[in-house]
Amino acid sequence: MKTPASPEPEAGERIDALGICDWLIIQREDEFRFSLDAVLLAHFASVRVGARVIDLGTGSGAVAFFVLSRGAGNVSGIENNFRLAAMATRSADLNGLASQLSFVCGDVKQIDAYYPVGCCDLVTTNPPYRTLSAGRLNPSATVAQARHETTAGLHDFVRAAGFLLRNRGRFAMIHLPERLTDICVELRSAGLEPKRLRLVHSFSDRPAKMVLVEAVKGAKPGLTVLPPLIVYQAPKQYCNEILTYYK
Amino acid sequence: MKTPASPEPEAGERIDALGICDWLIIQREDEFRFSLDAVLLAHFASVRVGARVIDLGTGSGAVAFFVLSRGAGNVSGIENNFRLAAMATRSADLNGLASQLSFVCGDVKQIDAYYPVGCCDLVTTNPPYRTLSAGRLNPSATVAQARHETTAGLHDFVRAAGFLLRNRGRFAMIHLPERLTDICVELRSAGLEPKRLRLVHSFSDRPAKMVLVEAVKGAKPGLTVLPPLIVYQAPKQYCNEILTYYK
Repeated sequence: MKTPASPEPEAGERIDALGICDWLIIQREDEFRFSLDAVLLAHFASVRVGARVIDLGTGSGAVAFFVLSRGAGNVSGIENNFRLAAMATRSADLNGLASQLSFVCGDVKQIDAYYPVGCCDLVTTNPPYRTLSAGRLNPSATVAQARHETTAGLHDFVRAAGFLLRNRGRFAMIHLPERLTDICVELRSAGLEPKRLRLVHSFSDRPAKMVLVEAVKGAKPGLTVLPPLIVYQAPKQYCNEILTYYK
Repeated sequence: MKTPASPEPEAGERIDALGICDWLIIQREDEFRFSLDAVLLAHFASVRVGARVIDLGTGSGAVAFFVLSRGAGNVSGIENNFRLAAMATRSADLNGLASQLSFVCGDVKQIDAYYPVGCCDLVTTNPPYRTLSAGRLNPSATVAQARHETTAGLHDFVRAAGFLLRNRGRFAMIHLPERLTDICVELRSAGLEPKRLRLVHSFSDRPAKMVLVEAVKGAKPGLTVLPPLIVYQAPKQYCNEILTYYK
């Protein structure tokens, strides 16, 4: 269902800068808030001008905003947490973007209840990273849901992307390197062939913190592993590539 | 079968330095010769002191020599090309290593004809990298066999490793990044769980040229992606890490 629109911030909310186009985003201290991961994902994804994009598990909508800023024609985000989906809709209104950017509250496991098959060119997702057996659950149920696979897991996000994409459409995801085997197996099994992969390291002598992967629906096997993205050129100082994302 | 031993070089052969322990290796101009890949693989693999190791598709035996130099107790190499397997045996004799290093001529697809199940702690392989549909075949049938999957493919090498390893034994492989999805899918399917991965780049701003992967038989999922290995610190000048391999 469409969430109601009212751009005014409510009690417990705050308005943050997205860091691009002077756009603003409504977030809450007691909910999952966007991080560098959303920025990295949006800049990694192959966003074509005018593309129809769906962001799965969109949270406060940050990835959807960033992908729109890169030239997408329209972006829809789906989020299971009603409060976040409603906030994202109000953030779109706040920036006057409601004609291009919309959000629905819904479950990626029932993706066909919200969108038609093959309806988009690009699917993005910054999903919950950890399996239920990995690490401590956040005491907030909604934050836990954003970090752990409490409501939907990798398999569900990949399956939803396979449903939504047209043939040759692209699926871009950021995830933990420790899940890379799961990611490859799930993507291949869903007919989404990994074509571009990039490892994200804090520093060049550290293990990877994140992995960016882009798969193409119906493509032949054959993966390019891009140069590593080294986030910091000095402690607390982003590398030049990341600084250009904020220009 | 065991190949006959005669350390003297024959017509068309040359004796090259391995670059370690003053050991020598017999190679031929008209056969596949070892490259940096063999060195990288042997130094990436977790070689425990005294380990029983088998190197699949060992060619002239370089990986087997390098792994022995890192502390393995004994190493056996299997190679389909009779001339290479015989040369490798003579190289072991040439260095007085026949008690620790042996070679058999055989087909990894019939691995159970040569070794008992679960007989080793570590399996290494620097296999043919390319599928038959990828790239031009070398006009020499034996060089083509070392580079392309003309006689055995990734599936066969992974399956052989799964047969040879004891539970919790390790399988270390170097391969092309473009095959990474195939690698993950094959390893998982053979019960060899990828645990360590390292991308090898010529320079830090170039796509990966090679991937090093180590899987553990019967392990739980969960992969560490190590810091990237950047081969050159300047054109034609190896990085310090690689230079230490030759000390």
